[in-house]
Amino acid sequence: MKLKVADIGEFGLIRRLQKILAGTQGESPDVSVGLGDDCAVFSPPVNHELLITCDSMVEGRHYLPELISPRDLGRRAMVQNVSDIGAMGGFPIHALVSLGLKPDTRVHVVEEMYRGFISVLSSFGASIIGGNTTSVASGPFIDITVAGSVRRGAVISRAGARPGDAILVTGFPGEAAAGFRLLAGDCLSAGVPPELVDAYLRPDHRAVEGRAAAEQGYLTAMIDTSDGLAADLGHICSASGVGARLEERFLPVRRPLLEAAGLLGVEPVDLILGASDDYELLITCPLKRAGDVRAALSGVAGVKVSAIGTITDETGEVFLVSGHSEKPIDVSGWDHFNVRGSSG
Amino acid sequence: MKLKVADIGEFGLIRRLQKILAGTQGESPDVSVGLGDDCAVFSPPVNHELLITCDSMVEGRHYLPELISPRDLGRRAMVQNVSDIGAMGGFPIHALVSLGLKPDTRVHVVEEMYRGFISVLSSFGASIIGGNTTSVASGPFIDITVAGSVRRGAVISRAGARPGDAILVTGFPGEAAAGFRLLAGDCLSAGVPPELVDAYLRPDHRAVEGRAAAEQGYLTAMIDTSDGLAADLGHICSASGVGARLEERFLPVRRPLLEAAGLLGVEPVDLILGASDDYELLITCPLKRAGDVRAALSGVAGVKVSAIGTITDETGEVFLVSGHSEKPIDVSGWDHFNVRGSSG
Repeated sequence: MKLKVADIGEFGLIRRLQKILAGTQGESPDVSVGLGDDCAVFSPPVNHELLITCDSMVEGRHYLPELISPRDLGRRAMVQNVSDIGAMGGFPIHALVSLGLKPDTRVHVVEEMYRGFISVLSSFGASIIGGNTTSVASGPFIDITVAGSVRRGAVISRAGARPGDAILVTGFPGEAAAGFRLLAGDCLSAGVPPELVDAYLRPDHRAVEGRAAAEQGYLTAMIDTSDGLAADLGHICSASGVGARLEERFLPVRRPLLEAAGLLGVEPVDLILGASDDYELLITCPLKRAGDVRAALSGVAGVKVSAIGTITDETGEVFLVSGHSEKPIDVSGWDHFNVRGSSG
Repeated sequence: MKLKVADIGEFGLIRRLQKILAGTQGESPDVSVGLGDDCAVFSPPVNHELLITCDSMVEGRHYLPELISPRDLGRRAMVQNVSDIGAMGGFPIHALVSLGLKPDTRVHVVEEMYRGFISVLSSFGASIIGGNTTSVASGPFIDITVAGSVRRGAVISRAGARPGDAILVTGFPGEAAAGFRLLAGDCLSAGVPPELVDAYLRPDHRAVEGRAAAEQGYLTAMIDTSDGLAADLGHICSASGVGARLEERFLPVRRPLLEAAGLLGVEPVDLILGASDDYELLITCPLKRAGDVRAALSGVAGVKVSAIGTITDETGEVFLVSGHSEKPIDVSGWDHFNVRGSSG
């Protein structure tokens, strides 16, 4: 299994990947031309709008190959994109994968990445119908485009939050950031909680939860927390022309994150609100519908849902209420070109 | 104008690019959510199939910034993708652009690249509705996804060529390769024909020609020559289960390429058939329809169309007939991981 990409060339690699994909292609009767032509061709579902998103991961910047297996890397890259589809209320239908690979990359590594991609898509009957591999001298990258669909009129954007709306979040944001910092800081020997490593290496998307909640018709805005809870709340506020007030006591937190905060010497709330690599959903809806929305979200697979605050009419102002005091939150979040506020 | 990407950050860059795109967004009434949300959302045209393609360009591998202006680079990257859409008989409707940028990249350079992207899309009323920018330490890249549409049932794949079909090609394949070799080999002082430099730096796609020909209903296969004429003919033969015989005397060639071959010390036919970066169309159709197809192709804007050979039943065998002799052609073409046959 020491075969390298350079040994079999681009076309040889494509043939091997086609074998891995062969089983998944049969599930897509809407695809009239798949891999291996100038374009992939498919029939979009009727009475649906199409969603399209792309995301890149660059080695050394978004992942370190010594910390993550190729299959987990592939899975995580696809989760990131499917999460964006889910955050609009849609399901993925097809993906294209562009890889920049060093010529000495082992073929087995690429095949494992593909198995990771497929593991995320297959539960939706979605498949990889196109892509591109290119040789790079340095800085390998994964760039994925996912097309999804959503019933016409059922799209949930970031822009509909209204003063008085409840703010809900799924899962435990910040755990991936804690896991990454512990891994990268080589704190493993200090007894890192395995849940946090898992949160970073093997995150889940909430596309099924998002669709279930969107179908009720009560959501006013939805986004995934890929930039971090505070930054993504900032995006909702900015797009909706509103502000927000979060209650620190309602922020979801588990013991492993508290332990990690201790090991890292940071405040738990900074991990929860800051840049992280989890793909939870941040949702707004009218206060009186919050119970229904929570039930829809947790009804899928029992995910924890927390009501963490309220939308206000103070445009662009986001505050954290702690006991009797409140302070403004930095919503600048993760910026790829700007070290301020970055963690990953 | 020395502002760098790191000075304004990812979100600052997105805001500036949105200004450039603002004028083009208005042309897309089918887009319900554009730039700046988790996904772009659009309504695919009814009774059409969707085409989707992606292509990457990596600095140092696919382009050298010292040889091409940012606007030409953007234009060329988009032409490459639109060409793939055109080679299936479709038109582009929307694009997503993923950029991997060094933090010290000048903002002006990115804006110029975007102007290049838009210049190709605007004549179709197509726009950039999503994307992604990420920071890289080395190896900047451009990865573009283009979605297009084609009337249901009107897709032309690579797989329909039949023995006896005529083989047609537009334009003058090989001129881009000649231009690139002269530029990269620093032969400019030797009086490089400017047409060849143009062919490499500012190639055209033939999407309008391809659609016009496809609409007639006579084409059996179509592909663009982005891997080189011989390699792409090889792709048609392999996908269609046929062979081909090309006539050297019918291969289109102009004086500048002959001069370049002399300067480079290579045979003109090797430039014409080998790996090149032009985006001409290679088409097969029944012999008796060749005249109609030529008329449709050249009727758009007067592009040269040449009938260069015939499809045979010798599966996978491609021959070049020169006078009374014939010899097999290497159709392996450009392989990103394999230096054999590569030029770019």
